[in-house]
Amino acid sequence: MSHHSASSIGVIGLGAMGLGTATALLDAGLAVIGCDISAQARETFASRGGRSVATPTELAAECDRVVVMVVNAEQVDAVLFGEQGLVGVMAPGSLILQCATVAPSYAQELGERLAQVNLLMLDAPVSGGVAKARSGELSVMSSGSEAAYAKGQAVLDAMAATVYRLGAEPGAGSSVKLVNQHLAGVHIAAAAEAMALGLRMGLDPDMLYEVIIHSAGNSWMFQNRVPHILKGDYTPLSAVDIFVKDLNIVHQAGRELQLSMPVASSALQQFTAASGAGLGREDDSAVIKVYQRLSAFDLPAANDSDGQG
Amino acid sequence: MSHHSASSIGVIGLGAMGLGTATALLDAGLAVIGCDISAQARETFASRGGRSVATPTELAAECDRVVVMVVNAEQVDAVLFGEQGLVGVMAPGSLILQCATVAPSYAQELGERLAQVNLLMLDAPVSGGVAKARSGELSVMSSGSEAAYAKGQAVLDAMAATVYRLGAEPGAGSSVKLVNQHLAGVHIAAAAEAMALGLRMGLDPDMLYEVIIHSAGNSWMFQNRVPHILKGDYTPLSAVDIFVKDLNIVHQAGRELQLSMPVASSALQQFTAASGAGLGREDDSAVIKVYQRLSAFDLPAANDSDGQG
Repeated sequence: MSHHSASSIGVIGLGAMGLGTATALLDAGLAVIGCDISAQARETFASRGGRSVATPTELAAECDRVVVMVVNAEQVDAVLFGEQGLVGVMAPGSLILQCATVAPSYAQELGERLAQVNLLMLDAPVSGGVAKARSGELSVMSSGSEAAYAKGQAVLDAMAATVYRLGAEPGAGSSVKLVNQHLAGVHIAAAAEAMALGLRMGLDPDMLYEVIIHSAGNSWMFQNRVPHILKGDYTPLSAVDIFVKDLNIVHQAGRELQLSMPVASSALQQFTAASGAGLGREDDSAVIKVYQRLSAFDLPAANDSDGQG
Repeated sequence: MSHHSASSIGVIGLGAMGLGTATALLDAGLAVIGCDISAQARETFASRGGRSVATPTELAAECDRVVVMVVNAEQVDAVLFGEQGLVGVMAPGSLILQCATVAPSYAQELGERLAQVNLLMLDAPVSGGVAKARSGELSVMSSGSEAAYAKGQAVLDAMAATVYRLGAEPGAGSSVKLVNQHLAGVHIAAAAEAMALGLRMGLDPDMLYEVIIHSAGNSWMFQNRVPHILKGDYTPLSAVDIFVKDLNIVHQAGRELQLSMPVASSALQQFTAASGAGLGREDDSAVIKVYQRLSAFDLPAANDSDGQG
């Protein structure tokens, strides 16, 4: 399809995270080709000086390293093995960096399937959010072979501040990410539930936030998400439906491993209820509205701009 | 009962927290009289240079300020209103610092009952653990009248690094403490559940800990308690049964307020299961044994002293 040698870096999925990462790679002076089915996403990347294509097949021959930053395992499968997928077009020895949050069993199997077609894989889910994607300072929870790491070094250097190397086989990276998502999801639901309790008891929510972040009840998520509640601003930085998805992966892993996880299960039900109430695209802190709709307290209003003191 | 003027400070309850606080008050040069039903607790305080008595009545006439640092509301009631209680002996205008974790409704009512007998009250639950009690660096989540704060100033200065003043009425301090205990309890159960998931997936627990404490899944409790699991050391710094008690107070508050809190409820069930399995007096991180007993993974052994790397 192309007479260029395959030495560019592809970034498939120009959503918030992928767009940030693709831009960070550009900033690092690397040759990048973006890919997204959405013309609007491609235009945004173009406005940042990036070239992009609509289908994985279009970039496959030019790239020997491809970052796959899509939403779920189904999309990973489609961009790799689908009709317009990478596999069959990319040169042998090329590298796939699998960055989606997927089931560890899927990631492990994916490594085997890619090995069969002579492609290297890093199981490389990321953490850190959109701002850190944009600045090339993500954390990467990764696993894979020495050969895969060697091939991916320049990409990892440009996209991440910290690369955890968690094992020689795909699956370990996704396993650690899954544990992180378990905790992150539970902590968001717990933060919402605790703030609901405080509001229902009539406490001043700003004062309560101030005490808790300096106390043993604090969590990274409490400190990060509760300000959205205090401001009444549910603009999605990460949406409710992301945790419906990720806690369902936790749930499915528990089923496969026969491990009962009632705390994660109760948090999943709260996110499911939020999604069922039409809040799926709101910020994940909107899970507090599940409590508000079932109880006698008011949430801080959006125009209460002094909310955080 | 005594010809001394009532100007000493009483500390009722010489358990781990009360003993630490009583010693911190001594260190600050204050006149302190301890009180505990246990002869062993009194001897320990004596070995630190402290005088103590067996019943509240014995110190009531000498003290115009009394720190009540007992386990629960029943004990608070007993030391105040019981047969050998303070009320009726303490001089009018004396101050009770109520430091136990109790239901906000109880704390509020207690303020009214004490006002009826001309005693001041600070609703003043504490946070920070035994080491900070001993060093006089607790956090105090407090509420009460200006008169009560004025009377208690020297005591608060000596026992606490931070005093949050949360309102003019007893109840607010206990409400904020309850929210903190909700989160603390959920986060310990979540930490245990997440580590169980990681162990069941075959991850190295030390490595997993290292990644999580630098990621969005972190909590104060994860960072503080998981090292106990990694060392296999369940010596109780704070016991499982403390969270059975505190999450039951959360549960009861939810019942009174008609607020459904399924995440706290699932955490409570895990602590209840731990207690039912005979682990009630072990460190609260032993809640992970509930998962271990129902699944196919091993916990780090106690003699694995390199556990934390």
